[in-house]
Amino acid sequence: CFAPAQLHADMATLASWNDGPAKTAITEFVEKVTKEGGPDYVAPDERIAVFDNDGTLWAEQPMYVQLAFALDRVKALSNQHPEWKDKQPFKAVLENDIQALANSGEKGLMELLMATHAGMSTEDFEKIATDWIETARHPKTGKPYTEMVYQPMLELLTYLRDNGFKTFIVSGGGIEFMRPWTEGIYGIPPEQVVGSSIKTKYEVKDGKPTLMRLPEIDLVDDKAGKPVGINSHIGHRPIAAFGNSDGDFQMLEWTTTGNGARFGLLVHHDDAEREWAYDRKSHFGKLDKGLDEGPKRGWIINSMKSDWKCIFPYACEQAAADK
Amino acid sequence: CFAPAQLHADMATLASWNDGPAKTAITEFVEKVTKEGGPDYVAPDERIAVFDNDGTLWAEQPMYVQLAFALDRVKALSNQHPEWKDKQPFKAVLENDIQALANSGEKGLMELLMATHAGMSTEDFEKIATDWIETARHPKTGKPYTEMVYQPMLELLTYLRDNGFKTFIVSGGGIEFMRPWTEGIYGIPPEQVVGSSIKTKYEVKDGKPTLMRLPEIDLVDDKAGKPVGINSHIGHRPIAAFGNSDGDFQMLEWTTTGNGARFGLLVHHDDAEREWAYDRKSHFGKLDKGLDEGPKRGWIINSMKSDWKCIFPYACEQAAADK
Ligand SMILES: [Ca+2]
Ligand SMILES: [Ca+2]
Repeated sequence: CFAPAQLHADMATLASWNDGPAKTAITEFVEKVTKEGGPDYVAPDERIAVFDNDGTLWAEQPMYVQLAFALDRVKALSNQHPEWKDKQPFKAVLENDIQALANSGEKGLMELLMATHAGMSTEDFEKIATDWIETARHPKTGKPYTEMVYQPMLELLTYLRDNGFKTFIVSGGGIEFMRPWTEGIYGIPPEQVVGSSIKTKYEVKDGKPTLMRLPEIDLVDDKAGKPVGINSHIGHRPIAAFGNSDGDFQMLEWTTTGNGARFGLLVHHDDAEREWAYDRKSHFGKLDKGLDEGPKRGWIINSMKSDWKCIFPYACEQAAADK
Repeated sequence: CFAPAQLHADMATLASWNDGPAKTAITEFVEKVTKEGGPDYVAPDERIAVFDNDGTLWAEQPMYVQLAFALDRVKALSNQHPEWKDKQPFKAVLENDIQALANSGEKGLMELLMATHAGMSTEDFEKIATDWIETARHPKTGKPYTEMVYQPMLELLTYLRDNGFKTFIVSGGGIEFMRPWTEGIYGIPPEQVVGSSIKTKYEVKDGKPTLMRLPEIDLVDDKAGKPVGINSHIGHRPIAAFGNSDGDFQMLEWTTTGNGARFGLLVHHDDAEREWAYDRKSHFGKLDKGLDEGPKRGWIINSMKSDWKCIFPYACEQAAADK
């Protein structure tokens, strides 16, 4: 197993990346923008790198982790809501009826999200999300979701930070669902997490100042919403962007069309054996336009199968132990 | 005059603060939360300090700087808008008719803001704001506005950062009006600036990705909006908050009612000779409830007159040179 110092050294050197076009493109970009006096030099303040989360930093199959959370919350709250057993989309959740759930569409999904994510204080929600993430297990691997992260991407985050980059998450997922654990898992503190959000309202309830979560969308941080979220929260145009689906298209476009050296990469899920294989027709993490357009724009299509030696930290650790 | 190393040492030691209750309260708080193993220790990640801007970090008299910017912009744009010379509140601005401008109320102010702050790309607005802040001069002192900042507060920002704090601006002013210069003047990078904002829309115009500024309010980061902005952008509850008006009341309340050691301070403008004296009845930076309630809640009322040796950097420098 890894000793911490060795682990950090491996992280910083992209140890789980195979030598190949993706790794080469990354290291050449970083060397170029950090070379003082060079034509592509970028000052540390402007070394902003943005990362999508679902499917880019952690697994999103068989469903988004936050959706698994919402479904579990419906079940946990169902005894306070006897009406749910006759009312869609809640009935579908309680009966594990995936088809009926799918039929409820985006409107149904929004109802589930609001019923499980709004109506409590930010502090209460943080506790609910933290308790869940600590105890829930991935249906296929039985691992905590926070172990279903990609070791090569953890190394990339470390490598970029070691080279003076500031790393941000820019996810379609809920900002307050991610913040409780991103610092521990990714080394990304809450203020560097951008995500979809609902509105909150400050009020003093029974003498206690409280931020209440309202059932009202604030920002959908996906597609054309990602550059908006970046501008609102970060206030710089990034120089590097990492995603995995067409939901990241505008984020990569906004990033890579700025002046000077720029970098865009899409993680391609092409490894059915070690992870999942899906792209153009997937319900979660659909990657279609990006596969066609990305290469024309100089974006790297990163093959999980060929560019990564191992995927999940536990698998990488096992591989190291086996040597 | 100051040598840079000496300046930094002075900054870090609160050199422009008189010994007295405010300075003592600050240093005791910082020593307490940074003392490892002590009962009030706070880990660096949670050492979040938030600062109001207008009247807390820089002067807000005879009017908010951003209002001066908006008025100048109306004048600069007036030849593209011949209709403005007959239309309030623009007519009032063009004729320097302060009374008519005041009569136009909040609705008039909002019209001015939207006419001068929306309808261009974020990049164009950044250039407009930057050009203005570099050339505009304060009507009383003739100094650039960025020299009308408070030396003791610059020292406080440095002192807190030297003690592992992350410093954020949380201002009722426009987030994109501040971001171009806060890093150079306060050492606070764009991603640590929270402020009022309008909505933006991402679009590809003539092949060029652009964020357009829309004439629609996103967040009013004032009063009960400040805890909302803090939660959205920072994602932690701060442990120290610095303001100067009743617009900061909820920010100080939210900050100081959390668990553990907390700190709140209100800058009281009581120095008519070296700055301005105003509080309960001021149009800009009204401080009324905070003066009464603050002390009961343990907040420090910081007297500019007695707690600060000098106020503006040029005055502090002059005082040092005179010695
Ligand atoms: Ca994704
Ligand atoms: Ca103020």
